[in-house]
Amino acid sequence: MEKKEILTQIRVQKKLPNLKYGLKKEAEAFTDRLFHTLFDAEADLENELDTLATQFSTLVALACWETGKSCHETWDTYVKGLPQILSKLNADAAAIHACDPASLSLEEVYLAYPGFLAIAVYRLAHPLYLLGFPLVPRLMTEYAHRETGVDIHPGAQIGESFFIDHATGVVIGQTAVIHNHVKIYQGVTLGALYVDKDLGNTKRHPTIESHVTIYANATILGGDTVIGSHSTIGGNAWITQSVPPHSKVYHNAQNSIKTNTHA
Amino acid sequence: MEKKEILTQIRVQKKLPNLKYGLKKEAEAFTDRLFHTLFDAEADLENELDTLATQFSTLVALACWETGKSCHETWDTYVKGLPQILSKLNADAAAIHACDPASLSLEEVYLAYPGFLAIAVYRLAHPLYLLGFPLVPRLMTEYAHRETGVDIHPGAQIGESFFIDHATGVVIGQTAVIHNHVKIYQGVTLGALYVDKDLGNTKRHPTIESHVTIYANATILGGDTVIGSHSTIGGNAWITQSVPPHSKVYHNAQNSIKTNTHA
Amino acid sequence: MEKKEILTQIRVQKKLPNLKYGLKKEAEAFTDRLFHTLFDAEADLENELDTLATQFSTLVALACWETGKSCHETWDTYVKGLPQILSKLNADAAAIHACDPASLSLEEVYLAYPGFLAIAVYRLAHPLYLLGFPLVPRLMTEYAHRETGVDIHPGAQIGESFFIDHATGVVIGQTAVIHNHVKIYQGVTLGALYVDKDLGNTKRHPTIESHVTIYANATILGGDTVIGSHSTIGGNAWITQSVPPHSKVYHNAQNSIKTNTHA
Repeated sequence: MEKKEILTQIRVQKKLPNLKYGLKKEAEAFTDRLFHTLFDAEADLENELDTLATQFSTLVALACWETGKSCHETWDTYVKGLPQILSKLNADAAAIHACDPASLSLEEVYLAYPGFLAIAVYRLAHPLYLLGFPLVPRLMTEYAHRETGVDIHPGAQIGESFFIDHATGVVIGQTAVIHNHVKIYQGVTLGALYVDKDLGNTKRHPTIESHVTIYANATILGGDTVIGSHSTIGGNAWITQSVPPHSKVYHNAQNSIKTNTHA
Repeated sequence: MEKKEILTQIRVQKKLPNLKYGLKKEAEAFTDRLFHTLFDAEADLENELDTLATQFSTLVALACWETGKSCHETWDTYVKGLPQILSKLNADAAAIHACDPASLSLEEVYLAYPGFLAIAVYRLAHPLYLLGFPLVPRLMTEYAHRETGVDIHPGAQIGESFFIDHATGVVIGQTAVIHNHVKIYQGVTLGALYVDKDLGNTKRHPTIESHVTIYANATILGGDTVIGSHSTIGGNAWITQSVPPHSKVYHNAQNSIKTNTHA
Repeated sequence: MEKKEILTQIRVQKKLPNLKYGLKKEAEAFTDRLFHTLFDAEADLENELDTLATQFSTLVALACWETGKSCHETWDTYVKGLPQILSKLNADAAAIHACDPASLSLEEVYLAYPGFLAIAVYRLAHPLYLLGFPLVPRLMTEYAHRETGVDIHPGAQIGESFFIDHATGVVIGQTAVIHNHVKIYQGVTLGALYVDKDLGNTKRHPTIESHVTIYANATILGGDTVIGSHSTIGGNAWITQSVPPHSKVYHNAQNSIKTNTHA
């Protein structure tokens, strides 16, 4: 097989003319800059906002968004929401610092907690999702997924003072609803009972009411599943039905233990 | 202790003259370029193939491969397989888009699904593994592991239209065999029942037949374990024995629930 | 809302004057250089040690460390320990190669095992934690967490010849104690039974005695929980109480299987 033939065969199979990986890089650079603009003490705030506006235009051009509004108008709407997002994220950071015995300073939360980064990128992506831009917010949260191991769909609804610790393996589905003061540990899935393409417009992920704590690797599935407020879900618990408020759910170990006392 | 003494002590313990981390960087750059060459609408295909050939020569030189064939010959064999790999990956992307209710476009699958990246790098690494190059394909899939949380050994055998969603924590062992149209979710392990160095040449990971779906965090272990075709394995299931075709295996929750109704 | 007003609102909420993300980047560059200095055959050892000393000064300045000792003195203490850390890490690599049937060469362990990278960064961060620098060692291990999916707190105590395979999702808490020749697989949590801010100075994570193997996704919780030496903890096991030496603990599958034989 000649090189020419190989090239032809590859070209035939490249069917998506708008599959530009430059969009992915731009979305990630935009996300990084947003994050540093809000939190880095050394960011030149005014300049950064101007650069963000330019990056936003580039994203709009690359993503071929068909929206009623002009790009400029959309950015103006989005940027007005940034102070409120920052306020919410400061509350998230405070909640993490207040809850984790291993946390020594608020600076540590902002700089070193992957859970904080994941929440921040979700809160920055969610308004773009609501504004009707499907691809860029997904690229933003998927970027955070790569950096942190936390996969939050930008369509999820998450209340105030949200805490994720250790982070790796957390999955929060598109139609999950999380109220205020919820704490989640590594490996927790808020997922669908089963997956079928036809379910695209159905609520298929659970609702977590306020002041609920969900320990590591617990799995909560189903769009009708509601974890009542002030409940504690123990590590490894497997839940596919609703739980009333003020409940404690614990996984019972199912182990066999053999000890060789003569070893 | 003097600086000179520290230097001497460190030098004494550096025992591997071929431990060149440049190889790792080159393998990752090669993987990135392969991926973009196949999928990015903006890649200059002809130039990219030439650069890939040069990068391949560098990898061969760095990895000190002892092979019967010349480097040039090996590349020629590998590059001829690229159109077929691309064809398989397009089928994988189509399967992801067809199955996931949260997926809005095929572009989203290519750009934002870590499961697609993991499968792509596996399919690009596997032929090099079969050609007898042990280290570079491992560096390739380990690169994808870092980016996606999916650890697929390049020696695994994976059929067509393979789907991984959410991705983080998936482990597919060296001797696993996966037939066509299999779907896997986050945290699934296809692993060994136990690990011992002497088992290097034994089939120690399971076989998954066609049209099987394995939901999140299920664990399937053992080289003799066969999941029969058209079976569904529920989330969190723990399986160490074969399951006949057309089975449904569900994990039974083992929870204690206490609700404080007077809170 | 005017741009000026948005800027003012953001500025009001930036409360931490020392939140400099440059510190994070510097800590990561320092970690990378330390790693390559010890392992890369192509590193110019003498120059690298000089550059590391400079980077360390920058870190000290950025982190505003209040310590009794001068920065220079601290670096001198730290650098003297590097040969011993290297010696331990070579033993870790040898243990990985000796145990994993899929490992073909020692080079592969150093270049491609995320578990090795995670252990290396932990061993390089732990002495800085003991020297009383809280933030930089956390940034170091969190960097490794991002790259590998392994979250080891720099305060954990880990003995010799430690092995982590597949890596993603491992969490080892601040007060965990791990003796020699321990093997751990993906998704294992050595965590706290419950989390409360007041527990900051309490031992809340388990002790793993020598020659223990813990298979994938097992969870071991509690500061009083001791896994006795020479024990094997099966995958998915859930342990919140001590286990005597020479024990084998296995998770019993709790599955329902239905097979449609007429399909």
